[in-house]
Amino acid sequence: MDAIESYLSANRSRHLDELVELLSIPSVSALSEHKEDVRRAATWIQQKLTDAGFEHATLMETGGHPVVYADWLHAEDAPTVLVYGHYDVQPVDPVSLWKTPPFTPTVQGNQIYARGASDDKGPTLMHIHALGALLAVSGKLPVNIKFCIEGEEEIGSAHLHAFMEKEREHFAADLILISDTTMISPTQPAVVYGLRGLTACQIDVKTAASDLHSGLYGGAVPNAIHALVEVINSLHNEDGSVAVAGFYDNVAPLAQEEKEQYAKLGHDDEAYRASLGLTQLHGEPGYTTLERLWARPTLEVNGIYGGFQGEGTKTVIPCEAHAKITCRLVPNQDPQEILDLIENHLATHTPPGAKVTLVRQDGGKPYLAPYDHPAIQLASEAYAHAYGTPAVFTRMGGSIPVVETFSNVLHIPVVMMGFSLGDENFHAPNEHFSLDNFDKGLRTLCYYYTHLSQAMGQA
Amino acid sequence: MDAIESYLSANRSRHLDELVELLSIPSVSALSEHKEDVRRAATWIQQKLTDAGFEHATLMETGGHPVVYADWLHAEDAPTVLVYGHYDVQPVDPVSLWKTPPFTPTVQGNQIYARGASDDKGPTLMHIHALGALLAVSGKLPVNIKFCIEGEEEIGSAHLHAFMEKEREHFAADLILISDTTMISPTQPAVVYGLRGLTACQIDVKTAASDLHSGLYGGAVPNAIHALVEVINSLHNEDGSVAVAGFYDNVAPLAQEEKEQYAKLGHDDEAYRASLGLTQLHGEPGYTTLERLWARPTLEVNGIYGGFQGEGTKTVIPCEAHAKITCRLVPNQDPQEILDLIENHLATHTPPGAKVTLVRQDGGKPYLAPYDHPAIQLASEAYAHAYGTPAVFTRMGGSIPVVETFSNVLHIPVVMMGFSLGDENFHAPNEHFSLDNFDKGLRTLCYYYTHLSQAMGQA
Repeated sequence: MDAIESYLSANRSRHLDELVELLSIPSVSALSEHKEDVRRAATWIQQKLTDAGFEHATLMETGGHPVVYADWLHAEDAPTVLVYGHYDVQPVDPVSLWKTPPFTPTVQGNQIYARGASDDKGPTLMHIHALGALLAVSGKLPVNIKFCIEGEEEIGSAHLHAFMEKEREHFAADLILISDTTMISPTQPAVVYGLRGLTACQIDVKTAASDLHSGLYGGAVPNAIHALVEVINSLHNEDGSVAVAGFYDNVAPLAQEEKEQYAKLGHDDEAYRASLGLTQLHGEPGYTTLERLWARPTLEVNGIYGGFQGEGTKTVIPCEAHAKITCRLVPNQDPQEILDLIENHLATHTPPGAKVTLVRQDGGKPYLAPYDHPAIQLASEAYAHAYGTPAVFTRMGGSIPVVETFSNVLHIPVVMMGFSLGDENFHAPNEHFSLDNFDKGLRTLCYYYTHLSQAMGQA
Repeated sequence: MDAIESYLSANRSRHLDELVELLSIPSVSALSEHKEDVRRAATWIQQKLTDAGFEHATLMETGGHPVVYADWLHAEDAPTVLVYGHYDVQPVDPVSLWKTPPFTPTVQGNQIYARGASDDKGPTLMHIHALGALLAVSGKLPVNIKFCIEGEEEIGSAHLHAFMEKEREHFAADLILISDTTMISPTQPAVVYGLRGLTACQIDVKTAASDLHSGLYGGAVPNAIHALVEVINSLHNEDGSVAVAGFYDNVAPLAQEEKEQYAKLGHDDEAYRASLGLTQLHGEPGYTTLERLWARPTLEVNGIYGGFQGEGTKTVIPCEAHAKITCRLVPNQDPQEILDLIENHLATHTPPGAKVTLVRQDGGKPYLAPYDHPAIQLASEAYAHAYGTPAVFTRMGGSIPVVETFSNVLHIPVVMMGFSLGDENFHAPNEHFSLDNFDKGLRTLCYYYTHLSQAMGQA
């Protein structure tokens, strides 16, 4: 590792210059006026991969913005790693709130400010630099590598699922490595091994053929809002748990070891409550905040509407009312099965005079890696090498659709090694990335790639 | 009455011509482009009152459209009747659905089609014609008369309450007579002796300082929609009755006689249900449909909203949610007291982590006349004279703000004798009025005015 260390030190200013170059390209995937910029970023990465010594660097068409592919497949008997990242970025509005122009990367102290610095151009480029360093120093890599760097992550990876289905042979690998998650703090790295899934539906309630006058009809006819409220209220127990029969049946319980690990993170409930402006936290009894967020499912009403919403008063008995619902799912809940259970619940909780309909919407499965997998355990050790502290193993309450795609299309483990911090303003003005994590992250990745073959061989 | 009968027959075509004249004036109070038309209708009525022999005919300014006043106060020792009506009409859109132009009155069969024919120019003009007939035949009237014909009924009588407060001496009378309600059927007249009141509020729920991501926070924090739904659901019992403590405490029970009268009307629940497109009726247990509509209070959610209402899915935990509520009140409920009770209910039903606020809005008291009052009993007898069937005594589920104003400002009974039918499309295209009721109504009113002094003397 000494040669690597020397190489990284010697090339630090080039690596940083390249990051500035990439961050200068306004590759906003959501905005059609940036379509050429998005492609320019892809081409820039393609060239950088070629320069670093990767082969077959190509822009693969997806129907939307292209995927950048490249490989190096000469490590015999070694595992193949599929490296995922994305070169597209979020829009920058409100641009007036940026202290420096979003596409004029600016180093201040140990931070680089620019849209995409933290999410995800910085972490993506680090993989190219780390593997480029290994290639430059040794003339070869300790593992086989395929890159899949997409340009639509910020618009929901719209074409990626179909693309991966079609190209599954092309992207065959032994594991996937993604750097698009966050560390706990600058001194506490984290490896994410679980994500919640999602299922979504709309509940529509209909009563009379039309809205009715509350004076002429009030008291004798059903009110669609009353009916909807009765249905929605029946979905939760008073203690905050979900009341849908069977909802928790397939939930994999937290391992005792996981509970202990989360407890050790010392989550400060009071600071968390205060930061959100809440009078109190509220959730399923019997679980800590981190357990609720990472390992327990939810049923949340995201929107409700019916009847009159204007100023003042309208004496109407509404004939329809609607609620939009999403559930965060944990292993081993299935998005469609959960909707079946909700539909069954509605059938047995239909208020008098109401027709209650469930409209199904898209969802995604939860993801949970076996965190005792050697490729995941090695990640923690790699952080320890660079940071002096091994990574903790955490889950995330949100969903990363691409992880579900990889997991369910390619059926291989996903290793999530993040180098960003939660306060780096991704998706907001003044996004920035810590150059300390840029430096330590390169060393973490070099360590990881160097020892992966051996670790997996031991498995 | 024979002389009156001869007079009415002899003047029938003049009466009808005058109705056509009045209906030709597009006095739409809601539309500023008709402001001069509204005043023209007022001036037309002022002139017609003068022509009929009334004195002091004036347009009294209210701050909005004027009130037409006139009187005849020479019946010594006889009661004074304040006759209320309105000369303004509803807008006519969608005008394309009218089969004849709304301000080109058209007689077809025994109906006259025009905006305002039934609501309320026809019935209002009938009082002028009836009293004009009595004056013409006898040279005097059997009672003292004051007219209050307003031009803002269709826009909520916006200025009338303050106007009546100010002019209460000017309008002092022994009873008020209004023809702005409906009969049960062409052969079954009705006298309305009770109206429900109204109270209104908005319930606002607030949880976090801002909306939160359902993946990152879901499971650990309160959801404002869940909290609102829990609160709203707590307002009713499962059987449909209102669960707010004390809500029914002041409700005057229906007299056995009233129950029997309503039962005799033979309300067809099944036809009513089908006509509204309902799978079933729903209301407070222990009461018939008419009892629920006329004599029982309600609490209706008129609108609900919070969070995401667009297409598809938004994974948000809303930090606020709102419901708009009105209650229909019956004697002896008080609008402010009912809001106090709801506020108390909210205080004891606040879900964890939610701030629940009640915002008070305007309301009006319920109205109930003693239907054994001789002036009300006489109304039924007057219908019997013209229709061959005495009127039934009914209540209405809605509110007529002007009735509350008269009742609470002038403290005298309100007699509601309607000549319109429920299917005459008031507020809708093709409004019409039955000339049969125009004819019979004139005779009903002449009988009523002729016998009122005697009836009230007997009281």
